[in-house]
Amino acid sequence: MAKKLNIGLFGFGCVGQGLYHVLNNSKGFTANITKIAVKDKNKPRTLDKSIFTFDKYEILDNPEINVIVELIDDADEAFEIVKYAIRKGKHVVTANKKLVATHLKELQQLQEEHNVSLLYEASVCGSIPIIRTLEEYFDNEQLNKISGIFNGTTNYILTKTISEKLSYASALKQAQEKGFAESDPTSDVEGFDPKYKAIILALHSFGVFAKPEEVLNIGITTLDDNDIKYASEKGYKIKLVPTIRQNKNKISIFVLPKFIKQENPLYFVDNEFNGVIVEGEFSGEQFLKGKGAGGHPTGAAVLSDISALSYDYKYAFKKLKQSQANNITNDVFIKAYIRYNSVVDLQALETQHIFEQYKGESYNYVVALVNVKSLLKQKDYILKNRLFVSEVGDENEAAKQGLDESVFESVNLEY
Amino acid sequence: MAKKLNIGLFGFGCVGQGLYHVLNNSKGFTANITKIAVKDKNKPRTLDKSIFTFDKYEILDNPEINVIVELIDDADEAFEIVKYAIRKGKHVVTANKKLVATHLKELQQLQEEHNVSLLYEASVCGSIPIIRTLEEYFDNEQLNKISGIFNGTTNYILTKTISEKLSYASALKQAQEKGFAESDPTSDVEGFDPKYKAIILALHSFGVFAKPEEVLNIGITTLDDNDIKYASEKGYKIKLVPTIRQNKNKISIFVLPKFIKQENPLYFVDNEFNGVIVEGEFSGEQFLKGKGAGGHPTGAAVLSDISALSYDYKYAFKKLKQSQANNITNDVFIKAYIRYNSVVDLQALETQHIFEQYKGESYNYVVALVNVKSLLKQKDYILKNRLFVSEVGDENEAAKQGLDESVFESVNLEY
Repeated sequence: MAKKLNIGLFGFGCVGQGLYHVLNNSKGFTANITKIAVKDKNKPRTLDKSIFTFDKYEILDNPEINVIVELIDDADEAFEIVKYAIRKGKHVVTANKKLVATHLKELQQLQEEHNVSLLYEASVCGSIPIIRTLEEYFDNEQLNKISGIFNGTTNYILTKTISEKLSYASALKQAQEKGFAESDPTSDVEGFDPKYKAIILALHSFGVFAKPEEVLNIGITTLDDNDIKYASEKGYKIKLVPTIRQNKNKISIFVLPKFIKQENPLYFVDNEFNGVIVEGEFSGEQFLKGKGAGGHPTGAAVLSDISALSYDYKYAFKKLKQSQANNITNDVFIKAYIRYNSVVDLQALETQHIFEQYKGESYNYVVALVNVKSLLKQKDYILKNRLFVSEVGDENEAAKQGLDESVFESVNLEY
Repeated sequence: MAKKLNIGLFGFGCVGQGLYHVLNNSKGFTANITKIAVKDKNKPRTLDKSIFTFDKYEILDNPEINVIVELIDDADEAFEIVKYAIRKGKHVVTANKKLVATHLKELQQLQEEHNVSLLYEASVCGSIPIIRTLEEYFDNEQLNKISGIFNGTTNYILTKTISEKLSYASALKQAQEKGFAESDPTSDVEGFDPKYKAIILALHSFGVFAKPEEVLNIGITTLDDNDIKYASEKGYKIKLVPTIRQNKNKISIFVLPKFIKQENPLYFVDNEFNGVIVEGEFSGEQFLKGKGAGGHPTGAAVLSDISALSYDYKYAFKKLKQSQANNITNDVFIKAYIRYNSVVDLQALETQHIFEQYKGESYNYVVALVNVKSLLKQKDYILKNRLFVSEVGDENEAAKQGLDESVFESVNLEY
């Protein structure tokens, strides 16, 4: 039988209100939001004020409350709340990807130690049930690669640059006006947000704990009109694509813009939508698409976690238990388009085999092999000199065009 | 902790061998295939003959065997095996959609009564984890509609008719040569196979038991070159699309060809792939795509069910428990393309509001509103007179083009 859940909610913004709405509109659901902790004492609220508190301990120390739903922005404060709650034996549901990704190992251990459940489906790709699917459906499947579009803000911007030929700056402005992008969009446009999500999925798909600082994230801030024109002419869309892949027990994780063609299902994931491709050894290519953001989709994901709690659901972390030998490497090559200023830039990035090179009055680019380790080392250089680096999606095309395959083998490129 | 599973396997065809391969190639899996029941005594086998038996009771009456994996073709015999196994207190995993759909209510009740678990993820859309996703992730979400491509054989044929301009007959022949279609393809091409799958999903998404005879299935056997030409000219692809949708606590289920445009994610589900669109009230549109058939994808789905059994997983059938008021209706209108011979045909189908009508030397068609109930009543007439009926996917276009919306309301069309 379903357990009675008394929920203490932290935060009552867009997602919190969405959740409240969802809870009150779902049939047959017995969970109860007992108390809501908020910060701003002066903000007008849509609910009776008796349900609100400004003192977090009124929720955390209340033995009647057995579930904490944490939906605040501040990852540091959220971490304190979540730790305290777990130690008090409360189950926790959170949508905070930064919190989860930054403290993944500690949180995983803490919830095992205190035998409570910490669920965070809403932290990755909104309404797409990707963590649950990895945990429960692909738990015994050997996975080869996870990739996708994990960030709705940048996907909205990139969609507009291609479909409406907007410049990066105008597209960002439009996204902000529509409420898709924060006034400080750094975490999205520099690729931190999708990196946190990739780190979380890496645990559930390959059983590894990656630290944010060891994972490359290059966002879309240096995208310019030349890159957009290049992509359009070649029939590409530009997407910001996190990749998690394995090669001989080594896992590599990186977040980079990627030029993709129509053969890739992500090509049709536009605007604020998210998509995930799961490549399994036996099941083949799986593709999931859904709304990546917004009060209702995220609220629905949180609700689903709450519902799972009522049936004592916990992540089993089977991949972690199966594959302790897996470790993380950045020593992998990718095929990339690099818009550069002078040959010094290419030396800095240590580009290998150059497939194409173009020099023009308005810009220069190469399509070359480059090591993720070099990109990570030179990330500041790339941003400072406003180079644009984008993975090129048609990895197989090189082979098809009769290029020497040994080029790939000699540099350990997976294609 | 994971429970030790001793598996008795029925059938050792494509999927059974796939499963065996998957089991032997997955890390950390402790289930054990103890015995395999097969029929043909003379067929050469790839495994040592001591593992095989020709007597089903050697498995069914063996108290050491706690899990039956049923992978035989014959739905009637499979039903006897499954019933017997459940009554003996064994858990059952099956991939047999006809078995499950035809006896859904009895099987659901039987497994509750005997407190065992009956899992059948592999029976619907191969490697796409749709039943599990509906059961566990959308268990508290109000769903509005499920639709998709549930049959790889017909999708392969339809893909070839559009992309390579093959006739229906040549495409079918090619599918048979490639091993996608059975020598008797009736269940696929007449839409029975996707109907069984729709019936299974209707239970897990809306909590209803539908009987096969009360659900319309019109397949692709009457498709001709005129229809293919029409679709191509208008920018449509033709897909065989089962739909399950709700309107005011009434659920309608039907399987029909459908003309769809690029806006529909199913447009890009080609060849033997399957896709499912889940439309939730809060989560919005979810889309899942994966391989719909073949030994490995289906084997992976069966494996995932076996793995779930080792953690005592059972379907909770929450939608069934939530929505006992839901009942099934065929009294809904759809917008359809109908290729007909004479006006008598349109009278027989009781077409309503005609949006377009074409008469030519080689064929006639209308785009009109037609009631699913009328189609069900006249199914034999449609097949006998070789009419082609296809839902038209751009339901919203009528409204956009300024057609009188009251037309739709008056006939209870959901658009």
